[in-house]
Amino acid sequence: MEAEYPVLHRPADQATQWPSVPILAYKQDAAAPYKDVTRQILFDDPKLNCQLRYFEVAAGGHTTLERHQHVHAVMVVRGSGRCLVGEQVFELALHDLITVPPLTWHQFRAGAQEPLGFLCMVNSERDRPQLPSETEAAALRASAAIAAFMG
Amino acid sequence: MEAEYPVLHRPADQATQWPSVPILAYKQDAAAPYKDVTRQILFDDPKLNCQLRYFEVAAGGHTTLERHQHVHAVMVVRGSGRCLVGEQVFELALHDLITVPPLTWHQFRAGAQEPLGFLCMVNSERDRPQLPSETEAAALRASAAIAAFMG
Repeated sequence: MEAEYPVLHRPADQATQWPSVPILAYKQDAAAPYKDVTRQILFDDPKLNCQLRYFEVAAGGHTTLERHQHVHAVMVVRGSGRCLVGEQVFELALHDLITVPPLTWHQFRAGAQEPLGFLCMVNSERDRPQLPSETEAAALRASAAIAAFMG
Repeated sequence: MEAEYPVLHRPADQATQWPSVPILAYKQDAAAPYKDVTRQILFDDPKLNCQLRYFEVAAGGHTTLERHQHVHAVMVVRGSGRCLVGEQVFELALHDLITVPPLTWHQFRAGAQEPLGFLCMVNSERDRPQLPSETEAAALRASAAIAAFMG
């Protein structure tokens, strides 16, 4: 066993998920709109080619509507909500799996009553997210279902 | 959105976890001892550099005692149990995080009363597991705590 692995076991706590894992701001980019989302980096090991992150969207909150070349592999581990992936809106329940393909608009929203917590696996090396232009946002809102989702 | 992503949403089912994801034998290698473990590959996308797998150890069951160069990033998502990592035995509860460093002996065991289900993130390209020699197994059992764990 090597010296760079001092902590092998990080217990969970139902309230805060993992007390030993820092709770981070969701975005560094102040221009990206979102509401009531926290981020925890659960695994970020130089020997692994992916990161595993945990995002928690508070009741009534939502992540940024964005897209990028890199893929998201998502699993719900707390609460429920909905997500937009491409042109489809999905209801999300505990343990559901969601794939976000390259360059596909996506957003996660908690319901009004409970948070939505999900794991997201991504490549460690990845591109930065793109935000929709006004034209692109208008094109998304042309779908009544997507407009209703976006609120 | 590209054609190779026909299924974006795979709902979970409390009984079987993910009805649309095949339940596989834990090991292809008949020489590797284990008891009552199933495996599901949740994400195995050529655009991702890691896989996310789900293993479920039935009550009283255990995974193979093994080691390898590649790293495991583990999160408990069902039930409880214990694991050996190196020379330490950890009690595992829901959502606990476990790291398995390179070339470190490890094994997961469910308790007698409930299953232990966990996610395991690994690099897509990785080495094959090694089993302990008789000498190595005896060295592990020299620790009373590890001998008690191994049963």
